Amino acid sequence: MVNQGLEGIVAAQTKLSLVDGERGELIIAGYPIAELAHNATFEETVWLLWNGELPMPDSFRDELASRREISPEAMVVLRAFAKDGADSMDALRAAIGCERVQWRTGASPVLPSRWTGEGACPPLAKFPTIVAAYARLTSGREPIAPRRDLGHAANYLYMLSGEAPDAERVRGLETYLNTVVDHGLNASTFTARVITSTGSDLVSAIVGAVGALKGPLHGGAPGPALDMVFEIGDASRAEEVLRKKIEAGEKLMGFGHRVYKVRDPRADVLAAAAERMFTRGGDMHLYTLARAVEATALRLLEEYKPGRKLQTNVEFYTALLLHGLGLEVPLFTPTFAISRAAGWIAHCLEQRANNRIIRPQSEYIGPTGRTWSSPAYATN
Amino acid sequence: MVNQGLEGIVAAQTKLSLVDGERGELIIAGYPIAELAHNATFEETVWLLWNGELPMPDSFRDELASRREISPEAMVVLRAFAKDGADSMDALRAAIGCERVQWRTGASPVLPSRWTGEGACPPLAKFPTIVAAYARLTSGREPIAPRRDLGHAANYLYMLSGEAPDAERVRGLETYLNTVVDHGLNASTFTARVITSTGSDLVSAIVGAVGALKGPLHGGAPGPALDMVFEIGDASRAEEVLRKKIEAGEKLMGFGHRVYKVRDPRADVLAAAAERMFTRGGDMHLYTLARAVEATALRLLEEYKPGRKLQTNVEFYTALLLHGLGLEVPLFTPTFAISRAAGWIAHCLEQRANNRIIRPQSEYIGPTGRTWSSPAYATN
Repeated sequence: MVNQGLEGIVAAQTKLSLVDGERGELIIAGYPIAELAHNATFEETVWLLWNGELPMPDSFRDELASRREISPEAMVVLRAFAKDGADSMDALRAAIGCERVQWRTGASPVLPSRWTGEGACPPLAKFPTIVAAYARLTSGREPIAPRRDLGHAANYLYMLSGEAPDAERVRGLETYLNTVVDHGLNASTFTARVITSTGSDLVSAIVGAVGALKGPLHGGAPGPALDMVFEIGDASRAEEVLRKKIEAGEKLMGFGHRVYKVRDPRADVLAAAAERMFTRGGDMHLYTLARAVEATALRLLEEYKPGRKLQTNVEFYTALLLHGLGLEVPLFTPTFAISRAAGWIAHCLEQRANNRIIRPQSEYIGPTGRTWSSPAYATN
Repeated sequence: MVNQGLEGIVAAQTKLSLVDGERGELIIAGYPIAELAHNATFEETVWLLWNGELPMPDSFRDELASRREISPEAMVVLRAFAKDGADSMDALRAAIGCERVQWRTGASPVLPSRWTGEGACPPLAKFPTIVAAYARLTSGREPIAPRRDLGHAANYLYMLSGEAPDAERVRGLETYLNTVVDHGLNASTFTARVITSTGSDLVSAIVGAVGALKGPLHGGAPGPALDMVFEIGDASRAEEVLRKKIEAGEKLMGFGHRVYKVRDPRADVLAAAAERMFTRGGDMHLYTLARAVEATALRLLEEYKPGRKLQTNVEFYTALLLHGLGLEVPLFTPTFAISRAAGWIAHCLEQRANNRIIRPQSEYIGPTGRTWSSPAYATN
């Protein structure tokens, strides 16, 4: 029997996240996603995933902050990619691939024992630096060096704009980063585990995962979800526009998920974060419009596709929240990667602690019995 | 049920290779491995995998040859890695990651229809250039520019040494490259397919696969197999040394394979190639010694582990053949990658032609019900 997508095949046990698609629940290392996302700093979430429990020692924040600078050769690569107008995920993959980090020797990084994440900090710390540098280079501006006194999320926003962000924006970004940090054996996380399973190193695993996350079937399309809201423009037009789309057979971006059969719990967390951020000084019109579009879309989806239970997914509010933070659409997937990298690393540690090489089978359906008979191909 | 290594799970159908571990058979796109490996040029093997049949048009050889130069930024990366004495597979991964190749637009690359491999040629063509440049940089020599008039295998040997190789050595290398070009859903090939399954690009898939091949559980250890032969030094000492190793519980490098329960068919092909090459001007003593070591090892393995059917695997004769070609041990796995890259690309094309995102499940075994109760972590 061929199981091309490995759907339903359990390929790993994990203490990192529980995705319950039937109940619409997501647990990260013991915490319901809403509990963690609204409260933790991103550093705390990373520590939790890498060590199994909180609290996080202050030294971890400093250790991460001290590893943000990228190498001269990574910068050469980013400049070359920017000159060609290359995709931002390709640039991220190439630049993080310039890292030369090995697994820490000495104590084995077995979860959930205390582990400082020494060998894992450098690549994780560099993700925002690379993404921000590339965003600036592609818009004709020089990269801004990281600031060690700012947290992971705040420093990312600082390196994008050159201005230290206010607390509300930092909280909004941290909530987003916490929300999408891990999600079972998604394709990029699975890629990282397959690479780790051969005994390879952490950077190789991360680089492979970035490549997988780039794919539109995985990294998703929060850009188009936002485009739809902008296209509608005013709540009064929502029903008309959405009906047309559905009747033309178009997929509504931001709705439906392969795993969640009820509402994606991350959508609620991000909606609350967006509301809070927009209320305290953002484009409240956009937020109100988005909620109206969502309500109309859900009503029409139930009308046209009864029983399919198509619900708002994480992309819809990701788009709204990141847009509110001032991020352009090409930054959406790389910002997702800034968060998910922490989950990838946690899965690599877990895989390494209890490893077996991941090597499925294939079924041969090609020809057999060919011979090298043609005179043109005689043995030389 | 958890299937951590996905052993026995069929994750893809393929027309590329059939690995029959029970019968000791390997078929590449219809040809028994011995039939193909001894006869085809490497370019013909690549064409066969990418297009499903032969003959290959001459233009394909020229197309590949025209794509060998690497970018200035890839060279900057190689120099930086060489300065640090970084692993040669890490350097290969980083440099090939500097490629900016997209899938060809236009005609869909569906196998086995005629497809020139346009978008796939550049990364494949650059593998030998990168590997040879890095080998020279790490030994304090300047890289040698590729020569367009030489074939893929001959040019690789030329870029390593600066001398155009004789026909015997080229034939020896081509036989090796043909022999290891594809092997079912091994971990690196599977990695490439997982990354492709998200809709990502060819370079991302290749880069991930290089990272997986680096792992010692996959890329193997042809170096140690050769070390063992050198350690024995003289056929008269083989039994004594090998008995000591087995009785001390050491694994004999170069014997045993997860899939093959009988003799790995690739071992015979490589043994024949090695014999031919050594006979016509190599270190015949080493070849004779290796055969004696093999015979003694097989006899002792049957004596100590009756019924386990531990057979000579591909690594044993890979080591002998590549050593005979003048390649140092750090070049063994990168040279494997030069060949397998063609298989990875073929699998990417196949995956893309009939895609479904590869996304298995995980089983959560961590805690639940944690709350953010500690006063130190109150909502800010």
